[in-house]
Amino acid sequence: MSEAANSTKGDYIQMDEVDWVPFPEHLCTGDIKFKLLHVSPERGGWTAIYDCKAGSSFGPHTHLGPSEYFLLKGRMQVRGGEAAGGATAVAPGYAYELCDVHHDHTEFDEDSELLMIVYGPLNYIDDGGKTIALVGCSQMLEFWNASR
Amino acid sequence: MSEAANSTKGDYIQMDEVDWVPFPEHLCTGDIKFKLLHVSPERGGWTAIYDCKAGSSFGPHTHLGPSEYFLLKGRMQVRGGEAAGGATAVAPGYAYELCDVHHDHTEFDEDSELLMIVYGPLNYIDDGGKTIALVGCSQMLEFWNASR
Amino acid sequence: MSEAANSTKGDYIQMDEVDWVPFPEHLCTGDIKFKLLHVSPERGGWTAIYDCKAGSSFGPHTHLGPSEYFLLKGRMQVRGGEAAGGATAVAPGYAYELCDVHHDHTEFDEDSELLMIVYGPLNYIDDGGKTIALVGCSQMLEFWNASR
Amino acid sequence: MSEAANSTKGDYIQMDEVDWVPFPEHLCTGDIKFKLLHVSPERGGWTAIYDCKAGSSFGPHTHLGPSEYFLLKGRMQVRGGEAAGGATAVAPGYAYELCDVHHDHTEFDEDSELLMIVYGPLNYIDDGGKTIALVGCSQMLEFWNASR
Repeated sequence: MSEAANSTKGDYIQMDEVDWVPFPEHLCTGDIKFKLLHVSPERGGWTAIYDCKAGSSFGPHTHLGPSEYFLLKGRMQVRGGEAAGGATAVAPGYAYELCDVHHDHTEFDEDSELLMIVYGPLNYIDDGGKTIALVGCSQMLEFWNASR
Repeated sequence: MSEAANSTKGDYIQMDEVDWVPFPEHLCTGDIKFKLLHVSPERGGWTAIYDCKAGSSFGPHTHLGPSEYFLLKGRMQVRGGEAAGGATAVAPGYAYELCDVHHDHTEFDEDSELLMIVYGPLNYIDDGGKTIALVGCSQMLEFWNASR
Repeated sequence: MSEAANSTKGDYIQMDEVDWVPFPEHLCTGDIKFKLLHVSPERGGWTAIYDCKAGSSFGPHTHLGPSEYFLLKGRMQVRGGEAAGGATAVAPGYAYELCDVHHDHTEFDEDSELLMIVYGPLNYIDDGGKTIALVGCSQMLEFWNASR
Repeated sequence: MSEAANSTKGDYIQMDEVDWVPFPEHLCTGDIKFKLLHVSPERGGWTAIYDCKAGSSFGPHTHLGPSEYFLLKGRMQVRGGEAAGGATAVAPGYAYELCDVHHDHTEFDEDSELLMIVYGPLNYIDDGGKTIALVGCSQMLEFWNASR
């Protein structure tokens, strides 16, 4: 079933029968797990669901293509949250995020669940702005296969 | 807020603060409502959430591009359901559906909620296979604006 | 080599070693031939080159997704040409055409050559606006395979 | 006219009336010029034509999405050319190149002209594999606007 992520066929995935795997430690802090649902090399993107425990956050990154997200549970502070000029998403929330958006702080202050449809690679950077990892559909598939 | 569906900017939508509107009667039976979340003319597609009450169904249609769905609540019989050689989706379920997939029966036997990301128009047909309506991002936006 | 049109691998095509095949008669008038270069089911589109002899024209159609064209040789009257409020493309010309553009007259008054990158199906219609053919990547592939 | 590259409307460009501008020196060697024809933030890509004089080459880069090219004039050695296990494109040639393809040597031994349709950013790297520049549609637009 879970090989659907690597399938060129259409495929149904019973999401609650697929195990969560840890999201790579160098790309986040705290407890973030994910399930890869689909990779689409022709659009250079992928679809995944993330389980983000209270206190976790994604490392700073820039989206090199647009993306869409659905926050199904919890709360997510995007670009520092509303207090810092960013957005505070509260479930059920949706956003279309533009190509080239930079997410320097993406924090979860409650247990949260996030669906993402991504249309291009993510450039994870360090404090000096240097690339730590370029994460496209191939890298997501490597993370997924390595953890299982 | 709800104009986000027609926006070229990225936008956050607090989904529970947007009202449901009826899905066009000639394209479904029973009680189906939707919220249009995004239209993307450059990909020829859109993103929407559907509230499908028990006993409702979408009319027969062919997807002229791929699509992805998340069944968040309830149960959906796709192409007649498993009993008829199709699939039965039970929340939480996900599928990537191929370009050209034909959905002749898409039935909800429980109150259900469905997210869809669509990458091309839908060809709704009658029993004789004739086109009733070609529904792309422009038509979805017309439905949305007409109901509000 | 020419099976590249149906390949999921990347592929090089030596374009002058592939034979032209006639474009379906019910979708054009006069002498139009084509070579299918790529189909992309994930984007619901395709890439092709057309050889359009003087006096030929494509039948009326609407693009249900965006498209791009390069006119490499000759002249093309789009939507009746400039004289009728449309555009007159003269090689070397390029256009990005929006989703939902309707092309009721696309005429070649000189021998012309046209590259097209298409991101959604075409709805070919008759004088009364009724659908004659919905032409997506699958139908293009059928035309291509049937003629060879 | 040339603002079409930045337009969200569809637009016709008379290609021979747009001036060539130099491609950034740190991303190529020799004489390479380009015209930006379209940027598509929703697909995270762009369309451009390149004028590559004999002896020029693009710097090593990886395509973080698929791409398509048409070689209209001349000859291009891709990944070292056929002699080195790569491909030698001779006009008129076309290729669909997969997501994640690495182009370490892309050399023009004749005056050549190349159309490219790109679906994701390019990662230009140095000899040690470090990123020199991530070039997406925004960066291409900056190069284009800076040179004119």
